[in-house]
Amino acid sequence: MNYKLTIQYDGSRYDGWQKQGNTQNTIQGKLESVLSRIAGEPVELHGAGRTDAGVHALSQIANVHLPDTFSADFLMTQINRYLPEDIAVTSVEKAAPRFHARLNARAKTYRYSIRLGSVPDVFRRKYQYRLDESLDISAMEKAAGFLCGEHDFRAFCSGKTGKRSTVREIYSIEICCQPGELFITYRGNGFLYNMVRILTGTLIEVGAGKLAAEEIPLILSSRDRAKAGFTAPAQGLCLLSVEY
Amino acid sequence: MNYKLTIQYDGSRYDGWQKQGNTQNTIQGKLESVLSRIAGEPVELHGAGRTDAGVHALSQIANVHLPDTFSADFLMTQINRYLPEDIAVTSVEKAAPRFHARLNARAKTYRYSIRLGSVPDVFRRKYQYRLDESLDISAMEKAAGFLCGEHDFRAFCSGKTGKRSTVREIYSIEICCQPGELFITYRGNGFLYNMVRILTGTLIEVGAGKLAAEEIPLILSSRDRAKAGFTAPAQGLCLLSVEY
Repeated sequence: MNYKLTIQYDGSRYDGWQKQGNTQNTIQGKLESVLSRIAGEPVELHGAGRTDAGVHALSQIANVHLPDTFSADFLMTQINRYLPEDIAVTSVEKAAPRFHARLNARAKTYRYSIRLGSVPDVFRRKYQYRLDESLDISAMEKAAGFLCGEHDFRAFCSGKTGKRSTVREIYSIEICCQPGELFITYRGNGFLYNMVRILTGTLIEVGAGKLAAEEIPLILSSRDRAKAGFTAPAQGLCLLSVEY
Repeated sequence: MNYKLTIQYDGSRYDGWQKQGNTQNTIQGKLESVLSRIAGEPVELHGAGRTDAGVHALSQIANVHLPDTFSADFLMTQINRYLPEDIAVTSVEKAAPRFHARLNARAKTYRYSIRLGSVPDVFRRKYQYRLDESLDISAMEKAAGFLCGEHDFRAFCSGKTGKRSTVREIYSIEICCQPGELFITYRGNGFLYNMVRILTGTLIEVGAGKLAAEEIPLILSSRDRAKAGFTAPAQGLCLLSVEY
């Protein structure tokens, strides 16, 4: 039976979602070890978004094939019983046999949270990037407008991409200012390695007046990582939802 | 110069607000050591509410007399620079010479947060008490009605009280239910040691059907701690505000 899991995690303590070589300290690794224990044999979990080390998720989606049939409620209770307190499964559903959390995802939404000003928020400190600078929101919105749509985002991607396509479509970027906090919400059909964090670093540089909004099309067409802004820290980023 | 400080803290790591003997791991202790460093001599901080170990504060108020005159902005920046990341000063004001944060307080508001159901909230896990039981909210509201007003709350207080008065007035108790979370907000002229946590434990027992709302007046008049409910865990409690 194929199961669709909705997963919430505080990524602070982990080396990201994806299992890597002998690093066991990943969200995927923790979940697979609990699921394998329930299944009585090794199982593999497929996550929709491979979040970086330190990145959080409000609703990550994953699927797993288990040899037996369990009720969704029983499975959720069992998994949560053995998970550490910074990872939780918030929903379990039986899925179609061919449902694949990553390959079938149509859109993902990420939110980046920035604490503005000199006064920290102690309760949200692990989920925000602190910035004591005033930002020009309308310049950031203008820059965001240039980033929306289908583009080759190679300039906004870390590491080697090889021959894989670096074309993605961003459906929307919303910038929402609340007292002391700024949220940038990205919805798109997919995001490259570190892409949301580099987009955020670039928008922050535009907001701080270090980069002009009009330079965005040139950065995109350069396909040169060095032209884009800095990689904003992982702790401010959260995978909000995945659509199918 | 006398200064009024507004302080926010995540109490998880601390032995409460108040400095005790040789325990240095208190919020008061951390703040006094930073303030003494700025003042160049030992100073004493007076907090409005002596929160227990593990209890949080959104807006604790304290006052401190410093030998020199500093601007409020300068002082706030300096204090926050040396504080650990789970304590922050969110406002500094110059106060009247005789202002005393505890003695002049007219009302305090505490909020207790309960996570309902089997699904944890990983982002709020340190600020909630998890309870996988259904609660009868109208019975809790009825019980809360009996607790409001001026009463001798000795039955709702831990430890020896000696000859000190255990009479306090609760102005209001609000029970607010949101999906997956229940908040109980207490506003009163003062609270005894562990009082908010015992009030909460008692209301939970009423909600769970272990105690009848009508027993509250009998518990109050018994002045017997053993008749009231359990002491709800510290982590769900937060000092919201202090009024002058």
